[in-house]
Amino acid sequence: MSHYYRLVVSCPDRLGIVSRVSSFIAGQGGSITEASQHSDLESGRFFMRYVILADSIGMSAETLRDTFSPIAEEFEMDWALTDTRQRRRVVLMVSRESHCLVDLLYRWTAGELDCDIAAVISNHEDMRALVEWHGIPYHHVPVSPDDKSAAFGEVQRLVDEARADCVVLARYMQILPPSLCERYAGRVINIHHSFLPSFAGAKPYHQAYQRGVKLIGATCHYVTEELDAGPIIEQDIHRVSHCHTPNDLVRFGRDVEKAVLARGLRWHLEDRVLVHGNKTVVFA
Amino acid sequence: MSHYYRLVVSCPDRLGIVSRVSSFIAGQGGSITEASQHSDLESGRFFMRYVILADSIGMSAETLRDTFSPIAEEFEMDWALTDTRQRRRVVLMVSRESHCLVDLLYRWTAGELDCDIAAVISNHEDMRALVEWHGIPYHHVPVSPDDKSAAFGEVQRLVDEARADCVVLARYMQILPPSLCERYAGRVINIHHSFLPSFAGAKPYHQAYQRGVKLIGATCHYVTEELDAGPIIEQDIHRVSHCHTPNDLVRFGRDVEKAVLARGLRWHLEDRVLVHGNKTVVFA
Amino acid sequence: MSHYYRLVVSCPDRLGIVSRVSSFIAGQGGSITEASQHSDLESGRFFMRYVILADSIGMSAETLRDTFSPIAEEFEMDWALTDTRQRRRVVLMVSRESHCLVDLLYRWTAGELDCDIAAVISNHEDMRALVEWHGIPYHHVPVSPDDKSAAFGEVQRLVDEARADCVVLARYMQILPPSLCERYAGRVINIHHSFLPSFAGAKPYHQAYQRGVKLIGATCHYVTEELDAGPIIEQDIHRVSHCHTPNDLVRFGRDVEKAVLARGLRWHLEDRVLVHGNKTVVFA
Amino acid sequence: MSHYYRLVVSCPDRLGIVSRVSSFIAGQGGSITEASQHSDLESGRFFMRYVILADSIGMSAETLRDTFSPIAEEFEMDWALTDTRQRRRVVLMVSRESHCLVDLLYRWTAGELDCDIAAVISNHEDMRALVEWHGIPYHHVPVSPDDKSAAFGEVQRLVDEARADCVVLARYMQILPPSLCERYAGRVINIHHSFLPSFAGAKPYHQAYQRGVKLIGATCHYVTEELDAGPIIEQDIHRVSHCHTPNDLVRFGRDVEKAVLARGLRWHLEDRVLVHGNKTVVFA
Repeated sequence: MSHYYRLVVSCPDRLGIVSRVSSFIAGQGGSITEASQHSDLESGRFFMRYVILADSIGMSAETLRDTFSPIAEEFEMDWALTDTRQRRRVVLMVSRESHCLVDLLYRWTAGELDCDIAAVISNHEDMRALVEWHGIPYHHVPVSPDDKSAAFGEVQRLVDEARADCVVLARYMQILPPSLCERYAGRVINIHHSFLPSFAGAKPYHQAYQRGVKLIGATCHYVTEELDAGPIIEQDIHRVSHCHTPNDLVRFGRDVEKAVLARGLRWHLEDRVLVHGNKTVVFA
Repeated sequence: MSHYYRLVVSCPDRLGIVSRVSSFIAGQGGSITEASQHSDLESGRFFMRYVILADSIGMSAETLRDTFSPIAEEFEMDWALTDTRQRRRVVLMVSRESHCLVDLLYRWTAGELDCDIAAVISNHEDMRALVEWHGIPYHHVPVSPDDKSAAFGEVQRLVDEARADCVVLARYMQILPPSLCERYAGRVINIHHSFLPSFAGAKPYHQAYQRGVKLIGATCHYVTEELDAGPIIEQDIHRVSHCHTPNDLVRFGRDVEKAVLARGLRWHLEDRVLVHGNKTVVFA
Repeated sequence: MSHYYRLVVSCPDRLGIVSRVSSFIAGQGGSITEASQHSDLESGRFFMRYVILADSIGMSAETLRDTFSPIAEEFEMDWALTDTRQRRRVVLMVSRESHCLVDLLYRWTAGELDCDIAAVISNHEDMRALVEWHGIPYHHVPVSPDDKSAAFGEVQRLVDEARADCVVLARYMQILPPSLCERYAGRVINIHHSFLPSFAGAKPYHQAYQRGVKLIGATCHYVTEELDAGPIIEQDIHRVSHCHTPNDLVRFGRDVEKAVLARGLRWHLEDRVLVHGNKTVVFA
Repeated sequence: MSHYYRLVVSCPDRLGIVSRVSSFIAGQGGSITEASQHSDLESGRFFMRYVILADSIGMSAETLRDTFSPIAEEFEMDWALTDTRQRRRVVLMVSRESHCLVDLLYRWTAGELDCDIAAVISNHEDMRALVEWHGIPYHHVPVSPDDKSAAFGEVQRLVDEARADCVVLARYMQILPPSLCERYAGRVINIHHSFLPSFAGAKPYHQAYQRGVKLIGATCHYVTEELDAGPIIEQDIHRVSHCHTPNDLVRFGRDVEKAVLARGLRWHLEDRVLVHGNKTVVFA
């Protein structure tokens, strides 16, 4: 099967970037199958994502990186060149609510998520049977309300041991400590069960019910130290009415959460999400 | 053309309400063309809306009200019985943004809004030609930042003079004083250009842009003293991405605002919106 | 836990139906928690659905049916009175595509579908492990292209043996013979992977791709002898663009199919779907 | 105010196109503000759209075209280079239904549609006052059922006289003869009041009502000789239920039609729509 190199760039916008990069790739014989660009006029920053058929270029990802490096330096690029053969390693963290976990496992099995699921970590035992049935290691790390540091020390150890490229809080329901937010910055994806910035914090569906909103939502975002305030990757909503109880909102919410998290994670794994400041460029 | 009576009821939920009301109507020979009920389990309150073919009942709305009154008393109902021949009188208030005004005038002309538009009040002259072209009186009431009370005194006088059943803030951009909010409680409809409770206050699209949300919205609600916090009638959203500038958000927002306000107003005029506490039951 | 009686009625519209039914229920002390009515002006037919707290009525479903029967006769009703304690028995039929099956099993486990899943029938072995892991009997009934009648004889035997109230074609990919369509009329639910009536028949996503549509959809409907033409219960869509390959359409389609089938089945199980002619009334 | 050149290209996909084009632009000092590309893997065709700040290039559109021409030839491009200062000339054609016309006129007034509206042609007199109030010439060209050729001869004369770049059938309700379809190929945009390919032909809302669909839609497409079968630019839908009469469907449909046509036309005017075969690439 074909594999691809993905070149993702963010840099100050100036004349000739596309020309330079595309000429470089053409010069190597590189066949581009997808190309996306964006100039952010407010910040003056430029973003691009190229997908290149690896076989069209006669060199490894590593050599290609070395060859490209001077251009990156010249244009002051934040950049990455990934090889789709190097599958990302993902750790899922869950609590007792299983809908996101079940959904991600199904999509992973169906080939919708191009990654290895290296491990599942949970503060409860509930999901062990399901996870192990999929052949994935399951780690039970209880979080004591009195002293969470031991638990998060263990979480860190497990994530590092799993060599995780990405951690997904699939309804984990615990707040990560600042140390972990910082250590894995840009690599931890959360699903929040509201249309942020509305109803940040706990029990958002009950807040939504009390406010009498006519739509509820969910938000997939990168985790930062400030709770529920990190860069938003994707959001969606579901219509509700006076007929619906808080339980109905929770039920509808589950469907929105699953869909939004799955899209956000897929885009992240395909290098489609570029963060700048507290916002994202998503080449969906 | 047929006309209809609309009976709208809210009362403490208890045994036999529907039976009593429907038997009463059947006893008068009343043919029910639409019937909606809702029991709010949390508050223990019951809501209903019946539409009755007027010709099937051999009495005027007034007589019907008198006849129904003892039942209403027995069940401690908040209720109203309206006659579709009595068209509601609506006053529109606008500022400089014309999209909601233009949209409502078109829908009114096309027969989508069953009401008389008694007058348009604006703090600017901009919309006079368009409004007068539709044969509707236009009142320019400038609002001085230093002393708004004179202006709102004049607004009150004009609304009262117009015998308005309903006031629509179609992007009026001024905050009504508490005295008017109270005087016209439950009869003033506002369109807020965000998905409330997100981005309450000024410049919501710019707030949304800064936060990097992936959906923007609009909210149609009844005006109460607390700014942007009244009962929500309807909401909707539009998808946005990193490609979109604040101007694009404003442009998309206009379409959502028009749609949401038009639905909210139509439902209000058709007695489909029942307020309880700070929420609404909408028999859409 | 409380249980409920659900009274579902369809009859020629005439004066006093609601009055008669609601008075009957009130006369038995019945507490109504949900009530929906609809008058179809074109066909002159009336539809209603009442949910009654069983404990508020001092009699069994059977006795209640006997007591109600004369009213039903008088108004020429098609009607049913069900008891939520009598869980429906559902047979799922699948082929190789597992997304709908996995989704339904998850929702069933999560308590979203109030039924027993009596069995899964498939023309392939692929899903056995998953189904049996859920403790549900799995029947492999291969369908030979040369002689399908033996297979469908076996299907009929299994469905009857399972005492199924409802058969769900969760991407079964085989056309049921007329004999089964007739035998289980109004009880077989199919998910079609297009926005019917567009792209009926085989490979609808490829048809959609060729036509260059900007939205793809899915349709949940009752199965009738005429292929893809039965009463529609629910539909939904997903936006697509020139970027998307037929495979992407299939992937998006899976999500729409899951959502649409789950809603349709839930509504069916809650007696919210009333068929008349080739259309449905859905008290969602 | 800044103006822009828009370069739109479609050609056989091969190595080095982006490199060649972007290097050419960079070589002229051209600052690219938007760039979109698409490789259609099925047809092996490549599409691109570049927006270039005109002031960053020291030459006129005409000179730029001459300079670019050899590259276009080398890569066998279908291409166009437009200057945003050259506003497109649009002719609107309407019948009696005014909603699309009113909507387009509002958007044009509000600056959402970057074009001149050169004339409105109608087979009825109804819209004259509104159109002339906007300062736009109005031509009444009655279409006799017996002999349509005279009318369409006159339509052709008026369109040519108006030097129209684009003709919009804003609910014109007459079928253009093949001669006009051919003469203005790729320049006539229609709004069809159904979710094509469902319900092609007449009275689609009534067809949709009879079929009992749960969503109705609208389709904006280029007109070709085959009725309702041209390349689709945009589609959208509105949810309906058993509560809704054919009139409600018509009313909802009006909103969808307006939105879909406005988006389609805007994209066309901004050179975002590239046709290939019977499909479109839309760089929205």
